[in-house]
Amino acid sequence: MSHPTTIQVVYAERPNGGVSADSFKIISAEVADPLPGQVAIRNHYLSLDPYMRNILNTPEMIGRPLEGRVVGQIWASRHPDFKEGDWVFAMGRWEQISVVEGTAARHVNINVAPASAYLGALGFTGLTAWSGLKHYGALTAGETLFVSAASGAVGSMAGQIGKIRGLRVAGCAGTDDKVAWLTDELGFDAAFNHRTASNLTAAVSAACPEGIDVDYENVGGAVFDAVFRNMRLGGRILICGAISQYQRAPQPCVPNILDFINKRLNMRGFSVRDHAAEIQEYIDEAAAWLRDGKLKYRETIVTGIENTPAAFAKLFSGENFGKLIVDVR
Amino acid sequence: MSHPTTIQVVYAERPNGGVSADSFKIISAEVADPLPGQVAIRNHYLSLDPYMRNILNTPEMIGRPLEGRVVGQIWASRHPDFKEGDWVFAMGRWEQISVVEGTAARHVNINVAPASAYLGALGFTGLTAWSGLKHYGALTAGETLFVSAASGAVGSMAGQIGKIRGLRVAGCAGTDDKVAWLTDELGFDAAFNHRTASNLTAAVSAACPEGIDVDYENVGGAVFDAVFRNMRLGGRILICGAISQYQRAPQPCVPNILDFINKRLNMRGFSVRDHAAEIQEYIDEAAAWLRDGKLKYRETIVTGIENTPAAFAKLFSGENFGKLIVDVR
Repeated sequence: MSHPTTIQVVYAERPNGGVSADSFKIISAEVADPLPGQVAIRNHYLSLDPYMRNILNTPEMIGRPLEGRVVGQIWASRHPDFKEGDWVFAMGRWEQISVVEGTAARHVNINVAPASAYLGALGFTGLTAWSGLKHYGALTAGETLFVSAASGAVGSMAGQIGKIRGLRVAGCAGTDDKVAWLTDELGFDAAFNHRTASNLTAAVSAACPEGIDVDYENVGGAVFDAVFRNMRLGGRILICGAISQYQRAPQPCVPNILDFINKRLNMRGFSVRDHAAEIQEYIDEAAAWLRDGKLKYRETIVTGIENTPAAFAKLFSGENFGKLIVDVR
Repeated sequence: MSHPTTIQVVYAERPNGGVSADSFKIISAEVADPLPGQVAIRNHYLSLDPYMRNILNTPEMIGRPLEGRVVGQIWASRHPDFKEGDWVFAMGRWEQISVVEGTAARHVNINVAPASAYLGALGFTGLTAWSGLKHYGALTAGETLFVSAASGAVGSMAGQIGKIRGLRVAGCAGTDDKVAWLTDELGFDAAFNHRTASNLTAAVSAACPEGIDVDYENVGGAVFDAVFRNMRLGGRILICGAISQYQRAPQPCVPNILDFINKRLNMRGFSVRDHAAEIQEYIDEAAAWLRDGKLKYRETIVTGIENTPAAFAKLFSGENFGKLIVDVR
């Protein structure tokens, strides 16, 4: 009996310095028959996210396809909840056909939003922003929220949720186009380009003249240093990511420990993995925001699985704009 | 009409580098008559605490007596709740007689413990440890608590409260005598001398082989760096003080921001000032611990108000052992 084949992107070698397309190779692999309880998904879209950089620090992963979230249609099912053609979301792999446990897949409704949205605005990207602010932000209307990497997939959701919750929202991004999108399209109250600002602390202060109550941190490094100096009494610092730190040796990051006491600061790291069970609650709330025009999103969809490695590398160079997705059909 | 005089310690000049006795001068001042609602307290004891270092960064304080907590007896009262001879605690000043609002004084019971204890084990020192652990520690029996400056006035209370709550408790101190006191007298499970340890990270790890769930931080700097590297998943870092940082330019203090995400860390700065209203609740609980021998304390009582400046300087050199008090009678 012959098996169909799938093209896979496997982790080839540990990056020596920054991530590049050379860290991966494209291979062809047989698709296993689903076992009882499993489903085979013909993936339409793969999600590319900065957190995947961590996997490349795991040498045991070399030679294996990278794990990642996918949206696609059931191609073969041995699980009673799924039938051929159903649209589903799952944790799959960087490949065209993924065989996963049925319990790890979830139906999505493409009448509510395009399928790709279930990887971004209605997926774990949005859930990351929503759950971080909900559980650790203690948001209060009228307060100031600052978002770094604010035009990014997660940052743009965090800023808009802040606006929906009645906060004043400011942020920074790495190009003037991205900054303009924040203020002109997403309704940010203030934004600046952190790559061209001559004094980051002053730039944050100008964007947040009364200081920052909640920092939704995605960048780390010099941007975080400037944000920290502008925190207000009782401020909450939510550490979602630190994209400036993924490709370098760790550097000390809090400029003055005594400010924690003087300002009663609270700094919390979190992961969407702890909040996966809340995805449907999030989708229900966010789908209404999308429908009402309160939540907007931007996607960059790269076509062709063979272009996945080069696309992934762009996540770390700042060349990408919006949620990065690969169409692998 | 002649007024009595009091000897006062006033702030004379901003320290150029470390605090020394030269930062202060001793003067004689008239005692004002208490106004309606006020009381005059003949101070017995003054409390000396590291937080007072911050006052020396306030140039407006030059020429004025330092504020500080006192225990003494009512010498003259124009407040109905107090009569001559009553033992009271109050926020007073570094002087022999303090006139304060009656609403800011509080009776103490010297049959429960010696009067000086109301500045330490039964005072704001103990409240600092107790309220920090209570509100921000989320203590769970069986977890590991680490306390830096563990033989200090606050640290020794924090460690013992941790033991009472059923945690495994480890700590560090700056002399072998202090370390021996922690393990032999206070019941710490492990302790080490951070001044002689050749590798601080390894020393913390040896003292906390399963890692640290709660850090009660009093030191900062290199000690904090080593503690941070030993934090466990879900760890809480309580920033009470950072005595290594009071006398120097601020230095960055968290070695790796990504550990906040990987370990879901929570770091919180706090101040006992936010918990002043809980003092009686604390005293009620801690007095029973003292009576039952579960809580021990050590005091260094310096005699003579004129010795206050030199005693204060020793708080920052590590020469002091236990709660530092001046007998000003």
